[in-house]
Amino acid sequence: MSQYILNLLPVREEEKGEFEAIAPDAVHVYAGRRTVTPEQLEKATIIFGWPRPREMKNARSLQWFQTMWAGTEEYEGMLPDGILFTCSAGTNSRSVAEHMLASLMAVCRRLPTYRDSQRAHRWEDEGTMKTILGGTVLVLGAGHVGSDFAGMCQNLGARTVGFKRTVRGAVPGFDQVYTMEELDRWLPQADVVALALPHSSETVGIMDERRLRLMKRDAVLLNAGRGSALDQEALVRVMGEGHLWGAALDVTEPEPLPQDSPLWDVPNLLLTPHVAGGMRLEITRRACIKLAQDNLRRYLAGEPLVNQVK
Amino acid sequence: MSQYILNLLPVREEEKGEFEAIAPDAVHVYAGRRTVTPEQLEKATIIFGWPRPREMKNARSLQWFQTMWAGTEEYEGMLPDGILFTCSAGTNSRSVAEHMLASLMAVCRRLPTYRDSQRAHRWEDEGTMKTILGGTVLVLGAGHVGSDFAGMCQNLGARTVGFKRTVRGAVPGFDQVYTMEELDRWLPQADVVALALPHSSETVGIMDERRLRLMKRDAVLLNAGRGSALDQEALVRVMGEGHLWGAALDVTEPEPLPQDSPLWDVPNLLLTPHVAGGMRLEITRRACIKLAQDNLRRYLAGEPLVNQVK
Repeated sequence: MSQYILNLLPVREEEKGEFEAIAPDAVHVYAGRRTVTPEQLEKATIIFGWPRPREMKNARSLQWFQTMWAGTEEYEGMLPDGILFTCSAGTNSRSVAEHMLASLMAVCRRLPTYRDSQRAHRWEDEGTMKTILGGTVLVLGAGHVGSDFAGMCQNLGARTVGFKRTVRGAVPGFDQVYTMEELDRWLPQADVVALALPHSSETVGIMDERRLRLMKRDAVLLNAGRGSALDQEALVRVMGEGHLWGAALDVTEPEPLPQDSPLWDVPNLLLTPHVAGGMRLEITRRACIKLAQDNLRRYLAGEPLVNQVK
Repeated sequence: MSQYILNLLPVREEEKGEFEAIAPDAVHVYAGRRTVTPEQLEKATIIFGWPRPREMKNARSLQWFQTMWAGTEEYEGMLPDGILFTCSAGTNSRSVAEHMLASLMAVCRRLPTYRDSQRAHRWEDEGTMKTILGGTVLVLGAGHVGSDFAGMCQNLGARTVGFKRTVRGAVPGFDQVYTMEELDRWLPQADVVALALPHSSETVGIMDERRLRLMKRDAVLLNAGRGSALDQEALVRVMGEGHLWGAALDVTEPEPLPQDSPLWDVPNLLLTPHVAGGMRLEITRRACIKLAQDNLRRYLAGEPLVNQVK
């Protein structure tokens, strides 16, 4: 039976030709998240992209689905039984890592406060700054994002320590890698604690009040994974007491963050609306297309796929 | 004759002992910029630090003066004739380079706009971002700061091109180095143009309207040297027309920037009040102390000094 490939990726004209050259016998249909029809979903044997999770139940012919994101939790329990499910982990890791570094350096150099002063036309020296040179950066989650971010910190002269569920040897970018059980003894030495964790039962609330208080008074907290990993109320409380140098959060719980959340106004806390990843950089878009093409080639050749979730 | 060393550096107790061990026969006097007396200035044969330029005429016994900054223009014409004059170029280059990188990444990722949204409790996606990965970064001024900044950009995957008065071979951090005469042919290829120039007759207005318009429409401009290098009015004009992705200025002309300057409000222009260098990082303070100690050792041994200005 010929494949019906429903391609919801942000594909350029010349890239359509690339997909069609890989699967010349398949039907290739291109659509957007909003323009896709129930008929297309029903016929599709392969879907690439970002369909609405609740519409996935219509994909009755589906054999394989590859989401264009690293995170997979929105499709949990929403996919037809027995299909192959792959994700795009790694394709936006450079973007997320750059966002983490940008946010970290902004907070170290008090750029949020300087921006506020600029808006008020105020030329005001805010005093001391921080550098990660010679410091210790802990990264919770030593996957693609954590590894890329850690490598950038190493290049700036920091020691990097990664934490993950299971340790199977060295991870690029990290001087050392440990299991989460070792985290508590490292927290008091950290200059930066960066969360790059997926949402799971094991990561919810992992950065709780006790752990926040184990951090140094002048340390920096970053979260670019999922908001659920952090106890936000505890963060507001401890930072209100002058604990921590600053923080940068790209993710919150819930999203969007409610207008009346006290998180918006914590001093030297930079908040961005879950924009570290996505398709904001052309390199991310291109990596996503290439991964889909590579996996399509593998799928048709009967080879194992990259990034198989289940 | 025994030396009278007037030390206006931010010296710690233990560091006083270090100075005294280097020059055990000298009189060591420690003071601040504001607490120094005319008598101390009159007796001093060596001064380290940051005395007020107009008070330097009182330093009638002076043989050698080392300023704690890289810039020397405030002391031009203010120093007694025939004295040795050294500066602290290089000691704050890491701090300035980090500030340039922090500001560049902030502008690439639209953090100024996101900060404004945060203040308004607004969760709003601003769309595309920029990366320097695979891009071309021009740095005007290939001294300590330019070299440090360029090295950071190389580590993030950019090609770096330095411009200086005279080229005498490779400079760390740069893929290529040219004289200023080559600048105009490079500007149209640049993703970032960073100014790290001292104030001099050759640098005033070097980044004029013509050169700003030679830059790509989506390029980023940085200035962390001296405000005089940039035609600010031209920048306001061209950015008002949608030219340039963004800019980050740590220096302006004059300083402080007048409250009614249109520069404060240019979209995606980040303005900080000349805080890239200074003594905001402990590594800068320590480098400054060490340079003074090293030069004192050299001075007493009759060796050539580091960073001699005249």
